[in-house]
Amino acid sequence: MEFPELKNDLLLRALRGEEVERPPVWMMRQAGRFLPDYRVLREKYTFFERCKNPKLVSEITTMPVWQVGVDAAILFSDILVVPEALGFEVQMIPGVGPLLPRTVKTLEDVQAIEIPDVEVALDYVMKGIQQTRMDLKGEVPLIGFAGAPFTLLCYMVQGKGSKDFSEAKSFCFSQPEAAHLLLQKITDITISYMKAQIKAGAQAFQLFDSWAGLLGPDAFMEFSYPYLKQIMAECTEVPSVVFAKGAWFALKELAATGANAVGVDWNCKPGFAREQIGSEKTVQGNFDPSMLHAPIEVIERETKKMIDAFGKDKYVVNLGHGILPSVPVEHAKAFVNTVKTYRAE
Amino acid sequence: MEFPELKNDLLLRALRGEEVERPPVWMMRQAGRFLPDYRVLREKYTFFERCKNPKLVSEITTMPVWQVGVDAAILFSDILVVPEALGFEVQMIPGVGPLLPRTVKTLEDVQAIEIPDVEVALDYVMKGIQQTRMDLKGEVPLIGFAGAPFTLLCYMVQGKGSKDFSEAKSFCFSQPEAAHLLLQKITDITISYMKAQIKAGAQAFQLFDSWAGLLGPDAFMEFSYPYLKQIMAECTEVPSVVFAKGAWFALKELAATGANAVGVDWNCKPGFAREQIGSEKTVQGNFDPSMLHAPIEVIERETKKMIDAFGKDKYVVNLGHGILPSVPVEHAKAFVNTVKTYRAE
Repeated sequence: MEFPELKNDLLLRALRGEEVERPPVWMMRQAGRFLPDYRVLREKYTFFERCKNPKLVSEITTMPVWQVGVDAAILFSDILVVPEALGFEVQMIPGVGPLLPRTVKTLEDVQAIEIPDVEVALDYVMKGIQQTRMDLKGEVPLIGFAGAPFTLLCYMVQGKGSKDFSEAKSFCFSQPEAAHLLLQKITDITISYMKAQIKAGAQAFQLFDSWAGLLGPDAFMEFSYPYLKQIMAECTEVPSVVFAKGAWFALKELAATGANAVGVDWNCKPGFAREQIGSEKTVQGNFDPSMLHAPIEVIERETKKMIDAFGKDKYVVNLGHGILPSVPVEHAKAFVNTVKTYRAE
Repeated sequence: MEFPELKNDLLLRALRGEEVERPPVWMMRQAGRFLPDYRVLREKYTFFERCKNPKLVSEITTMPVWQVGVDAAILFSDILVVPEALGFEVQMIPGVGPLLPRTVKTLEDVQAIEIPDVEVALDYVMKGIQQTRMDLKGEVPLIGFAGAPFTLLCYMVQGKGSKDFSEAKSFCFSQPEAAHLLLQKITDITISYMKAQIKAGAQAFQLFDSWAGLLGPDAFMEFSYPYLKQIMAECTEVPSVVFAKGAWFALKELAATGANAVGVDWNCKPGFAREQIGSEKTVQGNFDPSMLHAPIEVIERETKKMIDAFGKDKYVVNLGHGILPSVPVEHAKAFVNTVKTYRAE
């Protein structure tokens, strides 16, 4: 498919480590969370109606580009479409979160999982990507994404969100053989899924290991890292970001996955992140999402301070985790505009 | 009050940095969580009935000493007795967690809080300590505890448990004056509370900043650290532990609070923890509670590896967070026994 030519390529240049006038900015969960126009759509359609309708996907994905002026769009979707494609129904319970009635408890449960053809099972994602690329008119690049294998295992074992995913972790520690087989199956489908997203039109992608920080350093190297690395080794067609929230202890290893950039959360001081990730890789992060509730002058001051500390090159400005639904639009705009008017002193 | 003479003083010696034959071991949340005999009491009495009856407090507190053989007892109570004493009713909803119908949203809400005489408002805690000291017969020391001011603020603002306490953090960032006044009020009552616990018979104490890791380094230094330091400066009568879960970025500062020991969670490699905390302080931690679900031979191997890495002196063996209710008693015993039979090679 032919798409309109890209105008603002700041993100792609920053991910490739090229020199830029200023760092690009986007916000995790910018699509489908805090914008009032999104909340109108949420009243009219269920979560999966929104995810599976390419016109709605495009409308929600492009909304923060038109309304807040970010330098990249990230596809409106959910990491749990992969478990769903693997035969695990996902219910989104308003005010509670995801619920998976079918869960994994044993090796037999894992062996029973069949990997579908993602181009069929997740064709609605690819159609959403194509629609969005057309509608973006080349204004900014489109980022695709997937959940990391360990994070998806958490939901497939626990069956719902959790503060500590202790059941999922206990599954790994007590049945490592079953855990590794499950992680490999998720890895296999994720590689096909990312390749399909790229083929459909994703111009960069991010792998989200949202629950990596629940693991200790040894357990992370056993149950998460090898699978991140496999995915990064296979999906090299476009620039990539790996974000393992809470895995500050493995930033060096994450930089060695082959990803173009490593995301960091707000627990990491810029100096620590740079030192661990090295001067050759791009760093992405790490404004505390709760700080977008601070007065606008504080947001402006702290954002500027953050860019000064990370430096304008090999840096993508982002939050340290997803934007909160309660953030006023004017506050998000103040964050974005501070980056767009940034000049190094 | 005269209490029986202490027989096993390993914990106190390790906290004071003295040489020991082997490190002492206890487990966070060892009282009132995983033992079957506790679950019988839970069926008969509500949470606060258990907390407020000195005989039950003593029975639950001493249970892991008699049944699992830990080297210290920690008082059965809850960090939320302090908000309750400040006039914030706490309901414990089974399967959900704490619920505080009254919450703090504004400066006026903070100004309205009156600090009671803890010896009156929390006299049931002191009676529980005295009863427990008698019943322990000097077998092991009794640890008292309190929640850190930032962690208690989280509950008083948010009104319930939360994955990210974003409302509480947003309160800090958007209304720092109100936040600091609240933190100071909690600090004041906590100092009186710890002093009263020590006077009643607590032989050591731990300050739990369970949600410290939700803050970034700068925010931690603003909204948590100064208050931890005040408490540690005032409560020097017995050895102390400060445990700020997730605050790996501030271990150096935590070592400078004046606490005898710094607790670390399982994200921290032993070498990193030692390097940050320094060779003069005692370190406590950091077995992943989920790993107590692993087969017993794995628990034994990993526990031994952990002690080898931390070293037998200036070290208190513990979990990196509270024990899970689902842990089999035999697995907890394997953990404790591995420490008790440990000999450095």
